[in-house]
Amino acid sequence: MSTTDTPVRLKAVAAPNQPDVTPALEALYRGFEQELLVPLWTEIGDLMPAHPRSRAVPHLWRWANLLRLAERAGDIVPVGRGGERRAIALANPALGGRPFATPTLWAAIQYLMPGEDAPEHRHTQHAFRFVVEGSGVWTVVGGSGETAVGDAVPMRRGDFLPQAGWNWHAHHNATSAPMAWIDGLDIPLQYLTESQFFQFGRERISEAERITPERSRSERLWGHPGLRPLSVGEVAPGSPLLAYKWEHTDAALDDQLLLEQEGYGGTVEPGHAAVRFSNPHDGTDVLPTIRAEFHRIARGAQTTPVRETGSSVYQVFDGSGTVHVGERTWSVTRGDLFVVPSWTPFSARSEAGTTDSDSGALDLFRFSDAPVFEALHLDRQETLR
Amino acid sequence: MSTTDTPVRLKAVAAPNQPDVTPALEALYRGFEQELLVPLWTEIGDLMPAHPRSRAVPHLWRWANLLRLAERAGDIVPVGRGGERRAIALANPALGGRPFATPTLWAAIQYLMPGEDAPEHRHTQHAFRFVVEGSGVWTVVGGSGETAVGDAVPMRRGDFLPQAGWNWHAHHNATSAPMAWIDGLDIPLQYLTESQFFQFGRERISEAERITPERSRSERLWGHPGLRPLSVGEVAPGSPLLAYKWEHTDAALDDQLLLEQEGYGGTVEPGHAAVRFSNPHDGTDVLPTIRAEFHRIARGAQTTPVRETGSSVYQVFDGSGTVHVGERTWSVTRGDLFVVPSWTPFSARSEAGTTDSDSGALDLFRFSDAPVFEALHLDRQETLR
Amino acid sequence: MSTTDTPVRLKAVAAPNQPDVTPALEALYRGFEQELLVPLWTEIGDLMPAHPRSRAVPHLWRWANLLRLAERAGDIVPVGRGGERRAIALANPALGGRPFATPTLWAAIQYLMPGEDAPEHRHTQHAFRFVVEGSGVWTVVGGSGETAVGDAVPMRRGDFLPQAGWNWHAHHNATSAPMAWIDGLDIPLQYLTESQFFQFGRERISEAERITPERSRSERLWGHPGLRPLSVGEVAPGSPLLAYKWEHTDAALDDQLLLEQEGYGGTVEPGHAAVRFSNPHDGTDVLPTIRAEFHRIARGAQTTPVRETGSSVYQVFDGSGTVHVGERTWSVTRGDLFVVPSWTPFSARSEAGTTDSDSGALDLFRFSDAPVFEALHLDRQETLR
Amino acid sequence: MSTTDTPVRLKAVAAPNQPDVTPALEALYRGFEQELLVPLWTEIGDLMPAHPRSRAVPHLWRWANLLRLAERAGDIVPVGRGGERRAIALANPALGGRPFATPTLWAAIQYLMPGEDAPEHRHTQHAFRFVVEGSGVWTVVGGSGETAVGDAVPMRRGDFLPQAGWNWHAHHNATSAPMAWIDGLDIPLQYLTESQFFQFGRERISEAERITPERSRSERLWGHPGLRPLSVGEVAPGSPLLAYKWEHTDAALDDQLLLEQEGYGGTVEPGHAAVRFSNPHDGTDVLPTIRAEFHRIARGAQTTPVRETGSSVYQVFDGSGTVHVGERTWSVTRGDLFVVPSWTPFSARSEAGTTDSDSGALDLFRFSDAPVFEALHLDRQETLR
Repeated sequence: MSTTDTPVRLKAVAAPNQPDVTPALEALYRGFEQELLVPLWTEIGDLMPAHPRSRAVPHLWRWANLLRLAERAGDIVPVGRGGERRAIALANPALGGRPFATPTLWAAIQYLMPGEDAPEHRHTQHAFRFVVEGSGVWTVVGGSGETAVGDAVPMRRGDFLPQAGWNWHAHHNATSAPMAWIDGLDIPLQYLTESQFFQFGRERISEAERITPERSRSERLWGHPGLRPLSVGEVAPGSPLLAYKWEHTDAALDDQLLLEQEGYGGTVEPGHAAVRFSNPHDGTDVLPTIRAEFHRIARGAQTTPVRETGSSVYQVFDGSGTVHVGERTWSVTRGDLFVVPSWTPFSARSEAGTTDSDSGALDLFRFSDAPVFEALHLDRQETLR
Repeated sequence: MSTTDTPVRLKAVAAPNQPDVTPALEALYRGFEQELLVPLWTEIGDLMPAHPRSRAVPHLWRWANLLRLAERAGDIVPVGRGGERRAIALANPALGGRPFATPTLWAAIQYLMPGEDAPEHRHTQHAFRFVVEGSGVWTVVGGSGETAVGDAVPMRRGDFLPQAGWNWHAHHNATSAPMAWIDGLDIPLQYLTESQFFQFGRERISEAERITPERSRSERLWGHPGLRPLSVGEVAPGSPLLAYKWEHTDAALDDQLLLEQEGYGGTVEPGHAAVRFSNPHDGTDVLPTIRAEFHRIARGAQTTPVRETGSSVYQVFDGSGTVHVGERTWSVTRGDLFVVPSWTPFSARSEAGTTDSDSGALDLFRFSDAPVFEALHLDRQETLR
Repeated sequence: MSTTDTPVRLKAVAAPNQPDVTPALEALYRGFEQELLVPLWTEIGDLMPAHPRSRAVPHLWRWANLLRLAERAGDIVPVGRGGERRAIALANPALGGRPFATPTLWAAIQYLMPGEDAPEHRHTQHAFRFVVEGSGVWTVVGGSGETAVGDAVPMRRGDFLPQAGWNWHAHHNATSAPMAWIDGLDIPLQYLTESQFFQFGRERISEAERITPERSRSERLWGHPGLRPLSVGEVAPGSPLLAYKWEHTDAALDDQLLLEQEGYGGTVEPGHAAVRFSNPHDGTDVLPTIRAEFHRIARGAQTTPVRETGSSVYQVFDGSGTVHVGERTWSVTRGDLFVVPSWTPFSARSEAGTTDSDSGALDLFRFSDAPVFEALHLDRQETLR
Repeated sequence: MSTTDTPVRLKAVAAPNQPDVTPALEALYRGFEQELLVPLWTEIGDLMPAHPRSRAVPHLWRWANLLRLAERAGDIVPVGRGGERRAIALANPALGGRPFATPTLWAAIQYLMPGEDAPEHRHTQHAFRFVVEGSGVWTVVGGSGETAVGDAVPMRRGDFLPQAGWNWHAHHNATSAPMAWIDGLDIPLQYLTESQFFQFGRERISEAERITPERSRSERLWGHPGLRPLSVGEVAPGSPLLAYKWEHTDAALDDQLLLEQEGYGGTVEPGHAAVRFSNPHDGTDVLPTIRAEFHRIARGAQTTPVRETGSSVYQVFDGSGTVHVGERTWSVTRGDLFVVPSWTPFSARSEAGTTDSDSGALDLFRFSDAPVFEALHLDRQETLR
């Protein structure tokens, strides 16, 4: 390999406590290049900063714009084998045009036209779906697996649907209206760590799988609070409960705010209720690499600024308010998505609507890579103020 | 200590491969006694059998008889500080008259008259309450603790209420009728291992604690399926959910039987649905030393005989049927209690009632010491046939 | 069952806050007896004390006496199938003449004559051997298992040899002198919990197993500090390392006392070095139900009194000193054994010997049931003063 | 933001099952660019391949070349605050000139001149040192921490020295000769996940820290096989044992090969001995994000090809042989370093030296990111043939 081809290119620099740039130093650096070596002393500031300095930046995507483009894609881009999904991903403006919302997280809007199927496949990437509006699509899970007939899981506004890696799944829109939702995955993490596997499944789901019951089989087995089915032995990583229905999430958040009003705590801080979607089998995060939470900020309340290692994506589920992410401040409303990069301070404030019927609460769905940091003992958190 | 006082008394025996009883052997055994020693070779058959041979025996207690005696006790034995509870315990006939249902488990009927309070205390023994009939009593938990006002937990037919060790608790009967329920504790285990602590609390609960809400605070925080409150940090051993309501248990069992009918499994074996009460924080058993389960055996179904290390106590919650415990067979009906000693085969069969309105299912509540055996890697199970 | 046969016998008592003994109360108690019931209110003081009050008492056994009786047994009691081992167990004077050193622990002196074999067997009881003097016996482990030829483990003064449950094992005395050592097992615990299984193995070990290498195979695989063999996959509960040699234990204790002298801590408290024998696979206790430790109390040092839930057995390995166990105080010397019941304060002081060559340290081997209490979250400890 | 500035640039493509490139499709893609969106269907092949396709490539660095450049750097590049270390990192030719051996691992040669100090610092990146030749440098650990005087850890050929994140550390060369060794860290992983913190410590170590004992304090506390010091309570993630001495590693590998010769297994496969450096506290990997192993391939033996998710760096410690990494084959000898990217088959064969005194074994030190994959349940392995 000649030096002109070498992928290593070093600039001789007079760094702090480093010698002046001499011909000898230049020659040394050319030697490094030749042998595919890079000295620590020129890179340490970037590689080993005093605290995380994210390559990602805070950014906001407006739901109205996303939805408009998704609708347009619905008109002209088909769904089928090869492309697999009509999903359009957030690309953090500082991550080189890659479809990465943050260095570890993928977030996309997915869109399915009436009667359409998204074909079956499976992959090691952990995934979930969250529905900010609409209903009528369901996800069929496990159809190519041991159980011949997949579990049809309906999707409705507010529902959270985790999909642990390596489970077969397909989508079907049974209604006469298109439907949009968001997908969250750990695609960037698995891309960076190079651990991903993928397999195609059936092109089409069966007729039996087109009849969607009110509740999925997973909910009937695992959806009763504190009760585990004795018929299930070993449980693979990731939640066996495939849908967390909005009615439960909503009630849990209301309960916390009421307990606070009654003087019994229950909230994270005044006016700030929050739940974590958890695996009923062992109480851990729903997915091995993704944490998912729901936060409700009561009318007029505001959260204490916090910064953490790891990154998050938020979607406004309801209400409106103001969010602060590092140096950025945005007014947000239903469906808007934004990212909070690693070690970037975040806080949110709800802003009462104009009508009395409005509860005035700001409801935020959040997902993050926190389980990765906790598993590797790299989690740190700092409360500001 | 003279030999006449010695607590060790040995009989010189001519065991297999052992010498005849000679004066020298007699002298040796007297020496053992003197020094408080016992040879293995005379005891090994009892101490190290080929498989567990329980000192306990299978036994059945009829609910009607228990209730009659509890009512009588209600008339003439007061509840108050010192005696603490009007609880009457099952005494396995082979355990020397001790109030031990099995070598590790305590089971008692507790009875509270209208308006009565059982005074507050706490103990390291893990406990639960299960309600086979009636309602109107509630348990106030934690009132002497950090939260000045205890959490009032209502008790109704079918509810399971775990009470992990070292939590303050009291009972109050708010109705105009007496109420009975069963208490399960690990009193014998803690007695044998000598780990028990006990403290008296307040004589009477406060006025604020006499107003019972529909749901306890613990249910409002922890009773939403798969949702954990972010406001709760460290969780002590034992479930933070203080009531597992019958409506959820009933629905979970029904769901399993329906899934089976639809061809999707879900049951332990044909016609046998079962759930385990579990800690929503980490999915483990509700109590560190006690497992609690609910089994529903559909009309005409019967369970496969199984034997396990460790002992269980069952109470018939509904329906009627026949149970086999080792060599014993009993026809059982609502409220009846029976014990299954260690390594004793158990099976049950439901028997349809005479009326069409009867579902015909046999509903069994069960608690056992299984978590002890699993924690110590001493659990074994054998399916017979 | 007539009342005269009933195993439950109750005395009507006028307890605190209890009614006078009336004919009605007498009749109630007779009813309880009939139905095999015992009220809590008469038993609560015994069953639920303010803190553990052990049924066991502190007691000391002199090694000289044990050894004398073991030698005598060596003369007249053969070792063979059925009796299995020439083991003579400590019987706590307050435990009804049962061969239980404490409510959960078995401790015995075992004795093997020149050329004798103790036949192969296995049992679920966890066991260890500790050698206070002598050498020449080895234990053959696993010979009836997957590996046809058992692992011959030599035993020498100071060695600790754990034997996790359900491993085949036999002993062989290859020398021309008898040898004694102590056995520790969880026989009482498994007797109380009724979890024990037992199987006979071969009558005699093979010729290949009579040749003892310097180090056992287990030491060659697992005895290198911090290095685990990649060839071993799943590891059963209990340490895969079958011998903890005295040279390592001695060096570790010396190192701690030297670190303390150099000003770097390392000891539990001044002059008190201590190590725990641990499972190299996962760092837990060597046996699932038994903790084993070695304590060295430097010349003139003394330990802080401590009390804990759970019981211990100590053997003096070297030196002499004074030990305090509850209200008892004993001067102890090499080989002496004593028990510390649950929640009984314990402390020890070394007493310098009369010769200069004596290090003056008191070396104590200790085993306890602490892993049981920790697994069940029942461990408590209190430092006194 | 105008489209000319946008970081997202999309090419309209006619993918499988995708529409022809029409003006409408072009317009849609311009809309995506404008809104910082990227469709899945154009990226799925790259992001979600059938199995990992590493961006890294297999590559070999010759020790002779590394050492020559390090010596040259020793002459002209000083060590001091700011640059911190005279470390020169391997830059995988396919990773854009970044000093990343693999996507997650950093490997560098570090070089210290006689009498030089590398200044104290600490960082969350987990690190280790491994010494392929020489001795005389030691690492001082913890000097700015609670213990005023750091623990001086000598470094000699064959020693492995883990350094868990956030511990203060410095290096000192006490001899009259320069010394080189390799550093392994998880710098790329923490760079990608953005979790890194860094702090400067003292410029110079104290006089007390310049006197190196034969063994570090950590070895005296934690280096005795199976023995844990009772004086140490909570242990932070990462091994408390700061040096794994060559004599132990060498003996463990020899023992495995001898056990194999005696017919008792012990090796991974015929002629292939291997140990994993493990945390004596809990048996896990020495570092939360890095696994370290030592493999000895006996004269003439060869390993079965295996591929795994995750990447490794190997250094030849002794002997010579041939290694196959994917499509590449290299003859390797002492000190040579090479990388095995994710899911790339690897095997090695030893080649006997020409002299009889040579053992003929190929000794390979290996480190990898396996703990990351196992913690996240992303580990997969496949044995080929």
